[in-house]
Amino acid sequence: MNYPDKVYLNGSIVNPADAKVSVFDRGFIFGDGLYEVMVQINGKFFYEKEHLDRLKSGLLKINIDFDVSLLSNEITTLLKVAELTDKDCMLYIQITRGVAPRQHSFPNDIKPTVMMYAVPKLLPEINTTNAHVITRSDFRWSRCDIKMTSLLGNVMLNEEAMQHECYETILHRNGVFTEASHCNVFFVKNGVVYTHPADEYILNGITRIVVIELCHALDIEIKETPISLQEIDTVDEAFLTGTSTQIAAIQKIDNHLLFTENKKGPVTQKLQEAFLKLK
Amino acid sequence: MNYPDKVYLNGSIVNPADAKVSVFDRGFIFGDGLYEVMVQINGKFFYEKEHLDRLKSGLLKINIDFDVSLLSNEITTLLKVAELTDKDCMLYIQITRGVAPRQHSFPNDIKPTVMMYAVPKLLPEINTTNAHVITRSDFRWSRCDIKMTSLLGNVMLNEEAMQHECYETILHRNGVFTEASHCNVFFVKNGVVYTHPADEYILNGITRIVVIELCHALDIEIKETPISLQEIDTVDEAFLTGTSTQIAAIQKIDNHLLFTENKKGPVTQKLQEAFLKLK
Repeated sequence: MNYPDKVYLNGSIVNPADAKVSVFDRGFIFGDGLYEVMVQINGKFFYEKEHLDRLKSGLLKINIDFDVSLLSNEITTLLKVAELTDKDCMLYIQITRGVAPRQHSFPNDIKPTVMMYAVPKLLPEINTTNAHVITRSDFRWSRCDIKMTSLLGNVMLNEEAMQHECYETILHRNGVFTEASHCNVFFVKNGVVYTHPADEYILNGITRIVVIELCHALDIEIKETPISLQEIDTVDEAFLTGTSTQIAAIQKIDNHLLFTENKKGPVTQKLQEAFLKLK
Repeated sequence: MNYPDKVYLNGSIVNPADAKVSVFDRGFIFGDGLYEVMVQINGKFFYEKEHLDRLKSGLLKINIDFDVSLLSNEITTLLKVAELTDKDCMLYIQITRGVAPRQHSFPNDIKPTVMMYAVPKLLPEINTTNAHVITRSDFRWSRCDIKMTSLLGNVMLNEEAMQHECYETILHRNGVFTEASHCNVFFVKNGVVYTHPADEYILNGITRIVVIELCHALDIEIKETPISLQEIDTVDEAFLTGTSTQIAAIQKIDNHLLFTENKKGPVTQKLQEAFLKLK
């Protein structure tokens, strides 16, 4: 992991060493902010509108008053200064409530902090990962539909995967699989694709939405119905989705080996190939 | 609310306008940090050891490698520069995992960020608040024992109280009252004091611990047993505890009026008077 060459911060573009916020920024004090990650592929941001719409909707949910439509010009300028215009890259956007003396409730007349950066990122045509994942109880909050920066839970759960030399931690709550520490998760059983419904227990990932659309287009039956812990032995395939993960086949869930060597399931492969054509 | 005169940041004491952290600080990107609040009363920090021990134990829980014993000297210096030595004041301490390029899992060789400030704070001898509170379902994570800075849930729940012109939001989970958005909560029923046990659903507040000790000392029966939603009508008294709240009587819970005018219950009053003697 490297720092980006340039950081956008509240209208200025600066070197990473100069990209600093007040310790009284509520992003620092309270994790009171949201973020988005988009990838630029072949000169355009993949599902840009959907990402920015989700950001807009998230800001409304937590009452941060910021006009997302202002970002487009700023992104263009950032990419230009970072010499990434039209280049394959990943863009990170973070908006916090802004700077104020510490008090839990929302301060009046506060100006949001906007921070963005882009780093070169060449995504593979098809993700060749054959992920090993662990499963853990989801102890995060019950508003996972909000893409917030209060991410200590996700961080702890992701760290557990790393400690087990795994790619991800998939989470379960109330006896069913929800999502992963920074991905969505899908299962395939008897040719039917299953994923947790987009309620308050998961983030409705843009790639998740795209995969559901692809299932419809490919006449693959898709059910937004969760898979229970008990069903894990009867699952034929599983895969993760995410903006930079795209679609990653799962090879092993805890001790349940789904595939050996570099094999993956036919439904996962079909979706990966169809996904590639969207780019 | 005002900014403090001085801020301690990683060994330096600076003016608040100069107290800035990298946007790559994991406190800003992930809410990956902890905090403590202590009050200095009559020239010494109230239950200082207990606060610092809790901080130490929290850092262990989330694997931040920082020696809390280093803080004492730094606090002394900060108070001196801020001209608050021996003065009644509130000290805020925040420790984050440190600065690194964004990745969820814990980076190697990272140096924690330490930020502290003190503001003058004269606590009343006895808190005269007669709090009106609202109740809400607790949608925060299930590791409320960790005093983290990923506080968006607490912030949203506290904001709801403010919107209803109330002092606090008390929370319930699985049908029982747990704690409040930034306080602990106690109930009194037939002369017995009840509070939720110190498990992973609440922060084990230092004032909470002190109040439990006071109950023992005063021969008031205390049960670390939660009060259910259904029991609310049968409750005689209720109060909030916290470092700056100390002990605050609750007058009204949603529409349940416990007391009129400035009256409060005898157990609450007895505990407030005993608490005063500890200072």
